[in-house]
Amino acid sequence: MKTQTLISVKKFGGTSVGSIEKIRNLADRIKRESNPDKAQVLVVSAMSGETNKLVALGENIFSGFRGPAYDMLLASGEQVSAALVSMALEKVGLKSKPYLAYQLGIVTDSMYSRARITRIDTKKILADIREGIIPVVAGFQGVDALDNITTLGRGGSDTTGVALAAAIGAGECEIYTDVPAVFTADPRLVPRAREISKISFEEMIEMASLGSKVLHIRSVELGAKYHVRIHVRSSFEDREGTWIIPEGEIMENPLVSSLTHEALTAVIKLFPLPKGTESLASLFEDLSEKGVVVDIITQSEAPQGQQLAFSVPHEDLKLALEVIDQRFSKEIQVEVMKEISKVSIVGVGMRNHPGVAAKFFRTLANKNIPVHLVTTSEIKVSAIIDKKDLAEAANSLHTAFDLDS
Amino acid sequence: MKTQTLISVKKFGGTSVGSIEKIRNLADRIKRESNPDKAQVLVVSAMSGETNKLVALGENIFSGFRGPAYDMLLASGEQVSAALVSMALEKVGLKSKPYLAYQLGIVTDSMYSRARITRIDTKKILADIREGIIPVVAGFQGVDALDNITTLGRGGSDTTGVALAAAIGAGECEIYTDVPAVFTADPRLVPRAREISKISFEEMIEMASLGSKVLHIRSVELGAKYHVRIHVRSSFEDREGTWIIPEGEIMENPLVSSLTHEALTAVIKLFPLPKGTESLASLFEDLSEKGVVVDIITQSEAPQGQQLAFSVPHEDLKLALEVIDQRFSKEIQVEVMKEISKVSIVGVGMRNHPGVAAKFFRTLANKNIPVHLVTTSEIKVSAIIDKKDLAEAANSLHTAFDLDS
Repeated sequence: MKTQTLISVKKFGGTSVGSIEKIRNLADRIKRESNPDKAQVLVVSAMSGETNKLVALGENIFSGFRGPAYDMLLASGEQVSAALVSMALEKVGLKSKPYLAYQLGIVTDSMYSRARITRIDTKKILADIREGIIPVVAGFQGVDALDNITTLGRGGSDTTGVALAAAIGAGECEIYTDVPAVFTADPRLVPRAREISKISFEEMIEMASLGSKVLHIRSVELGAKYHVRIHVRSSFEDREGTWIIPEGEIMENPLVSSLTHEALTAVIKLFPLPKGTESLASLFEDLSEKGVVVDIITQSEAPQGQQLAFSVPHEDLKLALEVIDQRFSKEIQVEVMKEISKVSIVGVGMRNHPGVAAKFFRTLANKNIPVHLVTTSEIKVSAIIDKKDLAEAANSLHTAFDLDS
Repeated sequence: MKTQTLISVKKFGGTSVGSIEKIRNLADRIKRESNPDKAQVLVVSAMSGETNKLVALGENIFSGFRGPAYDMLLASGEQVSAALVSMALEKVGLKSKPYLAYQLGIVTDSMYSRARITRIDTKKILADIREGIIPVVAGFQGVDALDNITTLGRGGSDTTGVALAAAIGAGECEIYTDVPAVFTADPRLVPRAREISKISFEEMIEMASLGSKVLHIRSVELGAKYHVRIHVRSSFEDREGTWIIPEGEIMENPLVSSLTHEALTAVIKLFPLPKGTESLASLFEDLSEKGVVVDIITQSEAPQGQQLAFSVPHEDLKLALEVIDQRFSKEIQVEVMKEISKVSIVGVGMRNHPGVAAKFFRTLANKNIPVHLVTTSEIKVSAIIDKKDLAEAANSLHTAFDLDS
C-alpha cells in the first residue's frame, strides 16, 4: 500500500528557460519524467539576461535605490518565466498552475533585495499535487508582512527551491543549471578540474562564500539545516551531477575537495591607524553601513600605530575609499592594490591534518608566488595573490592537493 | 477651513513611459504639478512595445492559450512600469509607493484577458494620500477571487484609471497619451480633422465601439456610470485636450461630432440559407463560441432562401470561414470581400434630425462610392465600403457634416 506521494522539487536556472526552444525542451523533459508515484514541483528563474536588463533599467532611473519598488521591478523576470513554463506544460498536455510568491505565501522579512524566507504555506502546492497539477513557482521572490514583493538576492531561486523542498518535506531538490556538476575548480582556469560526485554541505557553503557561483549560499545553508539533499545537474543532459549531502554520508572525505577563486578583488592597506580597536570598529561599521563587503582582514601593531589591510570586491573599491577619506585625516597612508585575486582550497578532511596550510604555502613558494593576505578556517585556506599569478597558483595547488586524478 | 483633499488621478499610457528619458520627464511633470491641496494618484501602462513582446512570447509557447498563466505573463509589463515610475518619483524627491492589483485589492471577475473590475479597496491609497505619498498603480491588471492575476483587455489601463477615480471619489481622470486630444477624425486619413474640446460619454462609447483606439471602451462606460469626467491629453505638452463629460454639460451639440473608421475589415456573404431564424441563430452562436467578433449584419429574404451578409475583423476571417464550412453544406454560396473598410459618423445631435442618414448616402452617392452594408443607431451611421474609397468617403463626409471648420 502506498502511504505517501513522493515529491520531486526541480529548480531550473536562467539558461534552462532562456528561450522559447529551451522552455519547450523543459516541458518535454517534465512530461518524460512524469510518474504517478512521484509528483513534480518546479521553481524557475528569470530567462537568462532578463534580470540584468531589469537591473540596468532600475540603475538608470535611480542608481543605488533599494526598496519595495526595486524588488517589484526585479521580480517581474521570474513572473514571466513561471507563466511561460506553466503554459508550455499545458501545451504538452500536462496540468499546471503558475505561482508568484504572494499567491503561495512565500513569506520573507523586509530586507529588500536580500530578504530571507521565514515561512512557506504549502497548502496550495499539496492540493495541486493531489490533483495531478504541476505547480510552477516563480523563484527569487517573496512577500513580506506589508504585502510588498521582496527578492532573495542574485541566485535566490536556488533558495526558493530548497526552502520549498524543506517546507513540503520533499527531502531533496534538483538544481538544473548550465554546468553538468560542481567541479574541483573552474575548468576555464584549471583545465584538469574534475566533476565532484558528492560534497558536504559544509564544504559547499565555504565554496559559495569564497566565490563559487554554482549555488546561492543561503540555499546550501537551508539544505544543511533542513536535511534537503541538493542535486546540481545539467538542464541539457540526463546524467547525474553533484550531490550536496551531509558530511556523514560521504564515506571517504579527501583532504581537499575543491579549489575556488575570485579573479578580481582589491586590497586596501592603511598605516598608521590610532592604536586600539575603536578606530577599526568604527571604520568597519561605516563600511558595512555603505554596503561594502569586506572579505579578508589582517591587522598588526607597530610602534607608530596599527597597520590594517583588507580586501573588498572590485565594484566596492570606490565606495570603500570614500568612506576612508571621510573618516581619516590625510596623515594616514592609503595603499590600494587592484590587480589582485583570491585563491582558496576547501575540504572537511583538513580538520585533522595540520599540514595543509604548510603545503599550501610551500606550493606557492616553490613557484615564487608572493602571498599578500591569508585567512584560514577549520576547512579552508585562502590567499590573496597577484592576478598575474592566479592561473599558476590554482593549477599547482590543484595538483599538489591531488585534485587532478 | 479645508474639508477635503482633492485628488487627481492621472493615467499614463505606454508611450508616456516608453523609455528611461520619458519616465524621467513624467516624474519632473508630477513634481511640477505637486500641490498640497491636490493629491496625485498615478496609473501606468506597460512601456510601449512591451505588451506586444509578451504576447509574442506567449503565442510562441502556446498559441491561443488563455487562462491565469497568460494574464500573469501580460501583467508583468505594467509591474515594471509601476516600479520604475515610483523609483523615478523618489529620485526627484517625492515620496511614492508602487502597487500591483493584488496589493491594492483591484478585484475582478475571472474572465481572464477581458476581466471586469468588481471592486477596488481604497484604504491604502487614501492612507498614502494623507501621508503625502504618491501611489503608482500598475494598470491593466486585477486579481480575482482565486488570487489569480487577471487582465482587463488591451487598453485596460484607462479602465483602471477611471475605476480608481470612481472608487476614491476623484471626480475626474486624466488620460495622458501620445495624441494631444480626441480628433473629429484620424488626421492621417482626414487632414482637416480638428481637436474636439468636449464630447459626451455616449458619443465616445460609440466611437470606441466603432474602432477609435483613443480610449478603452469600458473606461468610458465607467466614466458615464460613476460620473468621472475623463480628460484625454498629451503627455508631452501642458495644454488641455478633450474632456469627455455628460451630454448635459455640453451647451451646443453639433449634429455630428466625429467621424470614425476601420481601414481593414472583411465581409462574408452567404446565399441561400434555409428560411427562418434557426440557421442564423446557430451560425452566430458558433461564431461567438470561437471568439469571432461579428460587427454589421444584414439579412434579406428571397424565394430561394435567405441572403446573409456580415462583417468581421480581418484577423477573424479565417476562423469565421472554418465555422461556416463546418456548419453548411457545399450548396451554399460563400462570397468573401476582403479589401473592405468601415466609415461611421457619430453625434448625439442626430437624434432629432432625421435627415442625417439621407445626407450620408447623398454624399457618398455624389462621389460614386458604392455602399455594401449599412447600420445605424440613434447616434451613428456606419457604412461598409471598398477600401479604395475610404479616404475620399471620409474626407467628403467630414466636410459635408461641417467637421472641417
